[in-house]
Amino acid sequence: MNLMNFVDYAGTFAFAISGIRLASAKKFDWFGAYVIGFVTAIGGGTLRDLLLNVTPFWMIQPSYLIITGIALITVITFGKHLIKLNNTFFIFDAIGLGLFVVVGIEKSLEVGFPFWVTIIMGMITGSVGGILRDILINEVPLIFRKDIYALACVLGGFVYYICTKLHAPIELTQILSASSVIIMRLLAVKYHLSLPVLKGNENEN
Amino acid sequence: MNLMNFVDYAGTFAFAISGIRLASAKKFDWFGAYVIGFVTAIGGGTLRDLLLNVTPFWMIQPSYLIITGIALITVITFGKHLIKLNNTFFIFDAIGLGLFVVVGIEKSLEVGFPFWVTIIMGMITGSVGGILRDILINEVPLIFRKDIYALACVLGGFVYYICTKLHAPIELTQILSASSVIIMRLLAVKYHLSLPVLKGNENEN
Amino acid sequence: MNLMNFVDYAGTFAFAISGIRLASAKKFDWFGAYVIGFVTAIGGGTLRDLLLNVTPFWMIQPSYLIITGIALITVITFGKHLIKLNNTFFIFDAIGLGLFVVVGIEKSLEVGFPFWVTIIMGMITGSVGGILRDILINEVPLIFRKDIYALACVLGGFVYYICTKLHAPIELTQILSASSVIIMRLLAVKYHLSLPVLKGNENEN
Repeated sequence: MNLMNFVDYAGTFAFAISGIRLASAKKFDWFGAYVIGFVTAIGGGTLRDLLLNVTPFWMIQPSYLIITGIALITVITFGKHLIKLNNTFFIFDAIGLGLFVVVGIEKSLEVGFPFWVTIIMGMITGSVGGILRDILINEVPLIFRKDIYALACVLGGFVYYICTKLHAPIELTQILSASSVIIMRLLAVKYHLSLPVLKGNENEN
Repeated sequence: MNLMNFVDYAGTFAFAISGIRLASAKKFDWFGAYVIGFVTAIGGGTLRDLLLNVTPFWMIQPSYLIITGIALITVITFGKHLIKLNNTFFIFDAIGLGLFVVVGIEKSLEVGFPFWVTIIMGMITGSVGGILRDILINEVPLIFRKDIYALACVLGGFVYYICTKLHAPIELTQILSASSVIIMRLLAVKYHLSLPVLKGNENEN
Repeated sequence: MNLMNFVDYAGTFAFAISGIRLASAKKFDWFGAYVIGFVTAIGGGTLRDLLLNVTPFWMIQPSYLIITGIALITVITFGKHLIKLNNTFFIFDAIGLGLFVVVGIEKSLEVGFPFWVTIIMGMITGSVGGILRDILINEVPLIFRKDIYALACVLGGFVYYICTKLHAPIELTQILSASSVIIMRLLAVKYHLSLPVLKGNENEN
């Protein structure tokens, strides 16, 4: 298992934990929580693969199912004590997000799509899992309202694009792109950065 | 029409009825109720077929549209009196679920996926229609909280797998797999069996 | 840019505006509102293309992204004053709907599906964007409860079918089919036409 795999699995674990914990707040049973965790972890990549018309990545090897199982056992075993680790999970989540974006971009480039499509695919890979999680637990998706999230994914895409135009080595491109996502997420949460809220249609129906 | 078709259609009818009745509780119009019934009946198989990259089954022959139409007419005509038939619909629903799981497994095996994928596809075929129904009527999906449902699908998948490993004849494999789903559903509802609920993150946000 | 393109873009713009305005009522940030507007505009055609197993149309050229951006800037700039233009947007929306239905039908015919499938694809193209919008903002989809909408799409499909059977020229077929959708929408809203509501299961759970 190389570094890329490790980061991928750590990101999957963090995404699954976030889904399972939100499911527990809604009193889902173990299996339901597992499903929510799994969908949170693989939902973005699955929509990307459907749009790209390739076999969804988690249907090729069972690691993602297993990691979600470990995440479920972790939440069942440690329960409340996990709250103390919120910051740790946040870091995992941000790192996972950065990597998911890079994976999404590279998979779309391989299939031959132009850059503006790959940037969207990077964003879908990073953020759709959380959107599906929020739909399944019947909440308005958080990412539309809180802390720059999807926009961090788009930034990562632009960084990837610029590095490619500058003929940067692939490893450097990957690191800079993922790092820009991670740093933007950390800054957004630390300094409560957010985009302006749209106003002016309160009476809309 | 052979037995397999009959059971398929009965299951479709029961799934459609469940969607239409929940839609009626939300005061949907006839057409909206029809759409909810149809999505409930075909949603699981459609996601499965998208993931497997084959043409969605209901786009090949119109039976499923017609059965949903009959279900709508049934609810419009008999309305409140259907409540007395709740047990009958529950049996249909359980039988349909058992069959949907078997169909999902076999379709994925045909495409050449390993067994762990086919078990997930069986579960998706059986349970995603009800999840989409609940999302469309803006409720937290029931199956995550009530009576072992998705887990019954997974059990059916394991039974199918074990039968195959033991080289059981295909008909016996199908019957045992579907029966295990049906029996587990009946037992779960009769004895209020359920999985433990995840706790410990009440303050999660 | 021919007339067909112009109508397509006007429809996209109207659909995007409707998504962005509903997002603003829910206090989404700019980026979230953009995403909702985009999903409203392209969601129906995307599901259609996934079901038909062709590359989603908006991944081939970036016009739809750009039009959604213009729609966002429009809402940010003019805000409350847009309410006065409600009727204008409604006309755009109805025209866009008519065209989306025709596009959906023709794309499915090209892939070789029978007419009953193409009618469903026309309806999906026209109405699924609005359904996804309502799911993302966590509301019960409007189209299931208000003013004949999806049914207008189905009517347009039947008109297309009948024209084809009568060997009408393609341009006439397109115009009659789209017009029937538009007129039915205008009449439904003007005269508050709606389908009967399903009743009788108030105690359903």
